[in-house]
Amino acid sequence: MKATYIYGAGDVRVIDVPDPSIQQSTDAIVRVVRACICGSDLHPYHHMAPNSAGNSIGHEFVGVVEDTGSEVRTVKRGDLVIAPFAWSDGTCDFCREGLQTSCRHGGFWNMGGVGGGQAEAVRVPLADGTLVAAPVTEDSPLVPSLLTLSDVYGTGYHAAIRANVNSRTTVTVIGDGAVGLLAVLSARGLGAEQIILMGRHKDRTDLGREFGATDVVADRGDEGIERVRELTGGDGTHVVIEAVGYMPAYEQAVGVVRQGGVVSRVGVPQYESAPIGGRVFYGNISLTGGPAPARAYIETLMPGILDGRVDPGRVFDREVDLDGVPDGYRAMDTREALKVIVRP
Amino acid sequence: MKATYIYGAGDVRVIDVPDPSIQQSTDAIVRVVRACICGSDLHPYHHMAPNSAGNSIGHEFVGVVEDTGSEVRTVKRGDLVIAPFAWSDGTCDFCREGLQTSCRHGGFWNMGGVGGGQAEAVRVPLADGTLVAAPVTEDSPLVPSLLTLSDVYGTGYHAAIRANVNSRTTVTVIGDGAVGLLAVLSARGLGAEQIILMGRHKDRTDLGREFGATDVVADRGDEGIERVRELTGGDGTHVVIEAVGYMPAYEQAVGVVRQGGVVSRVGVPQYESAPIGGRVFYGNISLTGGPAPARAYIETLMPGILDGRVDPGRVFDREVDLDGVPDGYRAMDTREALKVIVRP
Repeated sequence: MKATYIYGAGDVRVIDVPDPSIQQSTDAIVRVVRACICGSDLHPYHHMAPNSAGNSIGHEFVGVVEDTGSEVRTVKRGDLVIAPFAWSDGTCDFCREGLQTSCRHGGFWNMGGVGGGQAEAVRVPLADGTLVAAPVTEDSPLVPSLLTLSDVYGTGYHAAIRANVNSRTTVTVIGDGAVGLLAVLSARGLGAEQIILMGRHKDRTDLGREFGATDVVADRGDEGIERVRELTGGDGTHVVIEAVGYMPAYEQAVGVVRQGGVVSRVGVPQYESAPIGGRVFYGNISLTGGPAPARAYIETLMPGILDGRVDPGRVFDREVDLDGVPDGYRAMDTREALKVIVRP
Repeated sequence: MKATYIYGAGDVRVIDVPDPSIQQSTDAIVRVVRACICGSDLHPYHHMAPNSAGNSIGHEFVGVVEDTGSEVRTVKRGDLVIAPFAWSDGTCDFCREGLQTSCRHGGFWNMGGVGGGQAEAVRVPLADGTLVAAPVTEDSPLVPSLLTLSDVYGTGYHAAIRANVNSRTTVTVIGDGAVGLLAVLSARGLGAEQIILMGRHKDRTDLGREFGATDVVADRGDEGIERVRELTGGDGTHVVIEAVGYMPAYEQAVGVVRQGGVVSRVGVPQYESAPIGGRVFYGNISLTGGPAPARAYIETLMPGILDGRVDPGRVFDREVDLDGVPDGYRAMDTREALKVIVRP
């Protein structure tokens, strides 16, 4: 089958690899119906050292179950399933607490002999814990929105949930990528009435307004901080969702959070140390966030998609086939595309 | 009257200053019955640059109201009152939310023409918002415990509350100073069943055991982390209260917190930047804490003291008069004394 591999910065190729097959009685084989390219895939695309062996890539997909191991009970051949970006057993204490990214027996795609989502098919370990069947067929127009449950919608929601967004909290979202926009959608769904979106790409922030942003701030740095403060009576917002991962975004987050508030980080940090002394400590500001246990949120968020109340799939603005994946990376890197959906 | 001033590192003096007097109609004048020396007072004692003008010092006191401005309603001459370490109006949005340290009209002792607690008397601004009357007289044996409501008990409680300590959370407390010990007492009061106290002073950790610590770890660094992990099935605890403020304590906190857990900082950080990338982000670990709004907790915590259920005043192990304050600093600095109470 065809699968996408990365061999170093800027070097993404679609190659032929052996078809995946059941290896454990808890595995399922899933034929990929739609996958996508993630903002976090751009980090190795920017920085990976050359490696002639390459590594499979892609961690978001929706597909149809083609085969299951003897112990698999919750999904069956023919089901359309959503795969979150971490696989997990669904039974350990962390899974029961809703932190499947810390599952005691789980892991991540593209590691330890498990392939990636930007491929024709994937072997899914611990299928009962990992996969969620959706009550639609693969030709449903809802598939793109269901695909966002693999990662970006769950990640935006995680940011909002960990920060306790509700009808009494004002919110700033930093970043107009797919996660930022779906954090806006999530915050609106949780009842927030003022949602300030910080982003500079008008087509994206326009979508953010449709998702529920009440204000858009295109300025960055001190000007951006000043603008958010003007919009909030000088105080900043109770919650700041940081959906970028670079230090200037973190500094902006600390600059616009109200005293006693929360900075919720879901952009993968491209830094190790950051200021948590002065303003963070003295302002009783909390930091939260991390990789979203997307699996935990699928049952919560899917009904809104099935009902047509929300349409998170609007973040996809370009479609490619598998051979088009390398150009999809280029288009996301140059910001020609917000988020690329892959139809193998 | 006599008041304590600091003129630089190691240079604490008791000097004569004018008696305080009512300046605003919302002021009260409080004659100090007991004050104390705080671990955070040791920071200027270690690091303050020489300053010939000096600065008053001390921010924890219980006293008797001697005079009130014309607008003061909630306390009256003769009341025994507890003063939290920040003064606040009690009416702004931050105060109503219980974050009196961020009061829009409040401030801190020893700044802006307001004196300090290690003195014979103090002018208390915004007396209605700031002071809480206690239903005992100044000769009550409960006065030392009530004095801990000024700061250290409220600070330990703040650490536990901000981290949502309850009967289902395991807790590590780093630091066997007064705040750490009272964080143990607070965590126990909130129902925590496993409380690991990290500290090296046996007399202090023995008191910690009486306050509710179930385990004591004297090791530090990697050995200390390893020891806490052994006590928690390898996972660390849901909550870590960091009551020291130095980088090794922060690193220890991150090392012993369970994935998905919370590090709650109430030691004033003696660093600006710290690692919040790798383990903190990927483990979905939250950071919280900050200066405690001690005022917010006085009504909650005072009944336990009045009932005799808790005796946080046991942290005081040395008493001095005002002339003995400089020696009290020396004794706390050398760790001869855990916490020094001052009887003017």
